[in-house]
Amino acid sequence: MTQVELARKGMASGHAERVARNEGLPVETVLEGMCDGKIVIPANSLRLNIEPCGIGKGVSTKVNANIGTSSDSGSLDTEMEKARVCVQYKADTVMDLSTGGDIAGIRRAILASCPLPLGTVPIYEAGIEAVERRGAIVSMTADDLFATIERQAEDGVDFMTVHCGVTSRSLEHLRRRTRLTNVVSRGGAFLVGWIVHHGRENPLYEQYDRLLEIARKYDITLSLGDGMRPGSIGDASDSCQIDELLTMAELVERARKADVQVMVEGPGHVPLDQIVANVQLEKRVCSGAPFYVLGPLVTDIAAGYDHIAGAIGGAIAASVGADFLCYVTPSEHLSLPDVADVRDGIIASRIAAHAADIVKGVKGAADWDRAMSIARRELDWKEQARLSLDPGRSERVHSRFGSEGATCSMCGPYCAMKLVEEYLGVTMPRC
Amino acid sequence: MTQVELARKGMASGHAERVARNEGLPVETVLEGMCDGKIVIPANSLRLNIEPCGIGKGVSTKVNANIGTSSDSGSLDTEMEKARVCVQYKADTVMDLSTGGDIAGIRRAILASCPLPLGTVPIYEAGIEAVERRGAIVSMTADDLFATIERQAEDGVDFMTVHCGVTSRSLEHLRRRTRLTNVVSRGGAFLVGWIVHHGRENPLYEQYDRLLEIARKYDITLSLGDGMRPGSIGDASDSCQIDELLTMAELVERARKADVQVMVEGPGHVPLDQIVANVQLEKRVCSGAPFYVLGPLVTDIAAGYDHIAGAIGGAIAASVGADFLCYVTPSEHLSLPDVADVRDGIIASRIAAHAADIVKGVKGAADWDRAMSIARRELDWKEQARLSLDPGRSERVHSRFGSEGATCSMCGPYCAMKLVEEYLGVTMPRC
Repeated sequence: MTQVELARKGMASGHAERVARNEGLPVETVLEGMCDGKIVIPANSLRLNIEPCGIGKGVSTKVNANIGTSSDSGSLDTEMEKARVCVQYKADTVMDLSTGGDIAGIRRAILASCPLPLGTVPIYEAGIEAVERRGAIVSMTADDLFATIERQAEDGVDFMTVHCGVTSRSLEHLRRRTRLTNVVSRGGAFLVGWIVHHGRENPLYEQYDRLLEIARKYDITLSLGDGMRPGSIGDASDSCQIDELLTMAELVERARKADVQVMVEGPGHVPLDQIVANVQLEKRVCSGAPFYVLGPLVTDIAAGYDHIAGAIGGAIAASVGADFLCYVTPSEHLSLPDVADVRDGIIASRIAAHAADIVKGVKGAADWDRAMSIARRELDWKEQARLSLDPGRSERVHSRFGSEGATCSMCGPYCAMKLVEEYLGVTMPRC
Repeated sequence: MTQVELARKGMASGHAERVARNEGLPVETVLEGMCDGKIVIPANSLRLNIEPCGIGKGVSTKVNANIGTSSDSGSLDTEMEKARVCVQYKADTVMDLSTGGDIAGIRRAILASCPLPLGTVPIYEAGIEAVERRGAIVSMTADDLFATIERQAEDGVDFMTVHCGVTSRSLEHLRRRTRLTNVVSRGGAFLVGWIVHHGRENPLYEQYDRLLEIARKYDITLSLGDGMRPGSIGDASDSCQIDELLTMAELVERARKADVQVMVEGPGHVPLDQIVANVQLEKRVCSGAPFYVLGPLVTDIAAGYDHIAGAIGGAIAASVGADFLCYVTPSEHLSLPDVADVRDGIIASRIAAHAADIVKGVKGAADWDRAMSIARRELDWKEQARLSLDPGRSERVHSRFGSEGATCSMCGPYCAMKLVEEYLGVTMPRC
């Protein structure tokens, strides 16, 4: 039985129990969310060593980190090190987007050693195999694609991005040439090429029931990829993007009927004042399906620092209901991220997620800030470092100018905290 | 005559003309904003080598970078290097917050070599002189404080943070002990100490007319400092903060009547869902006075990465009307920033300001994104680097894995942009 089938019977899987415990929620709340399709717990039934997380309504906002090789860069070693960094800096999930080297070997190595729920985009492997065997991505057959999906499922992949919403209708939109940057999703581009080449419908859409069958068999969570996501703020919320969202809304309903867990992927590049509308629209048309956003990036010009543009958009999106933030690294738009980028991307997204969780009223979220503020007031530098997202960095920065006193090197003896305690003669109670 | 007096006569100062040109606005629009007190141009009448900027309604969001020594760290050399970095990474203004070494000498050196409008917090120098001469900050007299202000004015300082809104009423609020972190503003703490020690009112409030006289004489823009700003999200928007804002609203009116340019400083640590209310309230009670916010930081826990927490809050604040963002560096709460921190802080704030300018409809803002997106679509890496906030970094990251082809090392031959151009057979027109 899948986790949703269990939940419908009022029974909690071990994963559901663990999620409830981690979130400080009654397990009934988690089960109810799962039955409604508003909470998903990506966890392949074959996976053994997983630390599952809940994604959706009423639970904390989760952060995904993308790792994986490209054909230009990355190796088993670099990607394993990135996976380790994902655990160290507390990403909630990892996606292996490898497109270079031994793709299956890297995936299996990560699955074997990294306890985070793992996602993939199977069409990458399928498309690249088609290139290797038959010379072109578009020579991939529908059977090739489903065979790859099944193989990845057998490996234990917990969630899969499937661009089922890219259809012939998407092509009609693209052919109107109103976009600044047509398609910036790799999976979306593969499928656009395939549809054009074969003059046929996207197999992930046409044979969606076949996909649901595999997902159900392994209890894989489908993540409906937005192949038509805007790649520039000028393209945000256009008819091409929204049309795909409406297609995904239908597919969400069909997945729920099949007891398959499903979430919806969202943009992308979005001006700050369109983010709320994007989240509300997804929640409305997809009946509250968990929303998994990439950024969103609130400007196109932040190359080299796109983790910041993504954190701004991610915080706003999550504060109004987005459930799952895909990180963006400082190297986005420029190169494959390195290990330091992975850390910086995770931390930026975690700040965004936490800022949102405070206002979402997620249980315990504001307590963290309260504890940090008390440590700050008490000039307790050890505790401040402990409570930091990156304790090592906090310690290094605090001590780098040889500051050893009670205060830090920014204000030295003129520390406001210290002065006011002295002048007001109050030591605040540990409230 | 001050710039505002000129504006009231329908005459544009050279600075106003330059601001209008930089913003692509009719000079009349700038003059109207100055007459209404909704645009300020900080520029001391004695200053010669200044590149002025307009701050306020209808002009682009500006970014300030704080530099300066502390008694623990920094030197003339380090701070001059930071000033150079401020120009390189395009901060709009600089504040010299030095509290260590030859404070006056550092200020004069920056004024002599850095063309950006310069702000200070005169009470720092006055308080530290009092420590040196008489052993305690609180031994500073009102005359000492005004003498320092006048001396800094004569040096050519363009805008000054003056915590006029810290009053005995603020103390009453603090004594209720409802705050998690009482006072986190250094100037605020100095004044709280002074008020307690002397049992008298804040001289900057009591003798506000004396302050206005100096400001008018040198055409200095007053920045009403928020000594009671919240230092933790738990203290945000509390009665202590809002009471000070109401005091500042009265002082704004008095400054405007005296033809003194004035802006209002704002928080601080603010949960994401209270930022809009904070901006709207300032705009309402201070009759549209330019709002100069520090961050705001949307969480207390981001030590080591507070530039990101500040960029999230700053983007939201500016998108609904905040005019001027004081940067926050990665070292906030931990140590005096170093040169790299200054760069990172400026860039984070510039991303926030620009994301807001896009949705504010600031002239030309979205054109930058459009140009970047076109360069991206055309895989024109040189142009992408040129359009970046940090061209050197863009080039380094793009080339670090030896990527030499048309695409980048993230997707290599599977670049979506490239694939879709091939399959759709379209080269988009340079729109």
